[in-house]
Amino acid sequence: MSAKTKEKPQNSAGRWIGYRKEIKVLDCTIRDGGLMNDSNFEDKTVRAVYDACTAAGIDYMEIGYKNSKKIFAPNKYGAWRSCDEDDVRRIVGDNKSDLKLCAMADAEKSDYKTDILPKEKSPLDMIRVATYIHQLPLAIDMIKDATDKGYETTVNIMAISTVREQELDEALEMLSQSPVGTIYLVDSFGSLYTEQIGYMARKYLKYARAAGKEVGIHAHNNMQLAFANTIEAITKGINMLDATMAGLGRGAGNCPLELLIGFLHNPKYMLRPVLECIQNDIEPLREKLGWGFDYPYMLTGLLNRHPRSAMAHQDSENKKDILYFYDQTMREI
Amino acid sequence: MSAKTKEKPQNSAGRWIGYRKEIKVLDCTIRDGGLMNDSNFEDKTVRAVYDACTAAGIDYMEIGYKNSKKIFAPNKYGAWRSCDEDDVRRIVGDNKSDLKLCAMADAEKSDYKTDILPKEKSPLDMIRVATYIHQLPLAIDMIKDATDKGYETTVNIMAISTVREQELDEALEMLSQSPVGTIYLVDSFGSLYTEQIGYMARKYLKYARAAGKEVGIHAHNNMQLAFANTIEAITKGINMLDATMAGLGRGAGNCPLELLIGFLHNPKYMLRPVLECIQNDIEPLREKLGWGFDYPYMLTGLLNRHPRSAMAHQDSENKKDILYFYDQTMREI
Repeated sequence: MSAKTKEKPQNSAGRWIGYRKEIKVLDCTIRDGGLMNDSNFEDKTVRAVYDACTAAGIDYMEIGYKNSKKIFAPNKYGAWRSCDEDDVRRIVGDNKSDLKLCAMADAEKSDYKTDILPKEKSPLDMIRVATYIHQLPLAIDMIKDATDKGYETTVNIMAISTVREQELDEALEMLSQSPVGTIYLVDSFGSLYTEQIGYMARKYLKYARAAGKEVGIHAHNNMQLAFANTIEAITKGINMLDATMAGLGRGAGNCPLELLIGFLHNPKYMLRPVLECIQNDIEPLREKLGWGFDYPYMLTGLLNRHPRSAMAHQDSENKKDILYFYDQTMREI
Repeated sequence: MSAKTKEKPQNSAGRWIGYRKEIKVLDCTIRDGGLMNDSNFEDKTVRAVYDACTAAGIDYMEIGYKNSKKIFAPNKYGAWRSCDEDDVRRIVGDNKSDLKLCAMADAEKSDYKTDILPKEKSPLDMIRVATYIHQLPLAIDMIKDATDKGYETTVNIMAISTVREQELDEALEMLSQSPVGTIYLVDSFGSLYTEQIGYMARKYLKYARAAGKEVGIHAHNNMQLAFANTIEAITKGINMLDATMAGLGRGAGNCPLELLIGFLHNPKYMLRPVLECIQNDIEPLREKLGWGFDYPYMLTGLLNRHPRSAMAHQDSENKKDILYFYDQTMREI
């Protein structure tokens, strides 16, 4: 597929019925959702998501983190924060399906050199490196390590809404010279409007295409824009799409997989298995985990801030006191 | 402001900090929310919305319907389905504020000739005519009637996602020759993606600008796109924006006013009074009224259908059985 073809948006007028076969969907329900329960998912939930992903034709499933058990003590955090190969095999066996599996390693939180095994010893197919911009040299070392071990790789530069353009350009330049396969546009704070996503998407694509790499999108729903921003990324040419069942994810959550599948017209994607998993295994968690759009998350999104203050508010007895959170936040900024 | 200036999008790169003073925000919380409770709002709720709108600098508030008491029996429907001037005055007195008031009259459901009084006898400032495309000649008569009586007017052509393009063009041509002030782009089923809204916005603006009229946007949230679609309409040049507090409205609800105010940078709009009203007067209604994004509404949106089957499902004992609704719906189509 030529660069020129890639430039053509999928959904310009008259192109609503077809689909773009290069698009891949990545389910990160368990990984991102793990930020709402310290990754303490029961095996049956992880298995239900795996089964639904395989039945629904999803391309990748992110089953958890490859983070350090020293930093995330196993007596507090569940297996999916620092999953090893036995954990993964307990769910997927040798994963005979077409679904590829991945795990995320956070820069400075992962003992990647020892905990990430050579690909031939692991059911994982891809390692996703999450990094703040100041950690980029370390992230590139992690990418090289995973590449050398035989994995596909992605890199997620977090919190870019707080990064100066010059530095972002420098980071994208460095990544375009690294062996990473896919560079992710990540709206960590759910604070980017659709047109800003479009602007960023063009920038990421410019660097990535010149280096023969793909670009991905990972959106948060603080302003009810996660799905819209994912569509915007698609129309600009981004091909790797993160989504989660019922939008389960940190704070306001992610782009809902069920909406995304409805939008993509690729007949390999099936909505019913996703709805079945949502009904039986994800929605029953909502009351306890409490993700999803709410006013405090809206406010941190509007203000381009990490959602941690909103998450603390949602866990407090004052949860319904929106004004308390508003006033406290406005005093602080 | 010249037509050329108007073409310039508000939010293209480098234009994120300012605002477009031509933009007007219309709160339709009570009117559209009335579709979830047969317009049975207590006076204190209507007054709270009115007070919040005035404090928040909102431009228009739609207080209810001017529909026929013969069709909507007052022993079942609340005053706000067929509000008369005494109802309105009970809330707003003579409305000494800058907030303009409006009411909606549905084609074939309104005794508009008698029930809409001359402007000088009413605290209302604007009449909004809602019409299906096959009722357009009647709607135009209603527009003329309201114009002759001294009101500003808008027209909302409903369910355009099911209308053929030729007929929509004919309708817009007819409306551009009518005395209506603002033509609304209405996504009744919440089934239009952002790029489709952009396409429609350009069409509506082409007809409206040639006739010296404004265009409005009224979006529904079936696919979590109401806010994104409203932003898209703004960037295309649409200046009249419908929104509701907490998104209260039929089915999946409307564009949330609190998100919209956060996006518009006009300093006259204040978020705090809106959040206060939401906390004290709107959110307490959620459990009973049950509006907001949910899977059945997503499905009717995806399928470009009226949400009535989803609303019935949400009111049933099967409410949590998403798959039941999915299977039933897929059998029917």
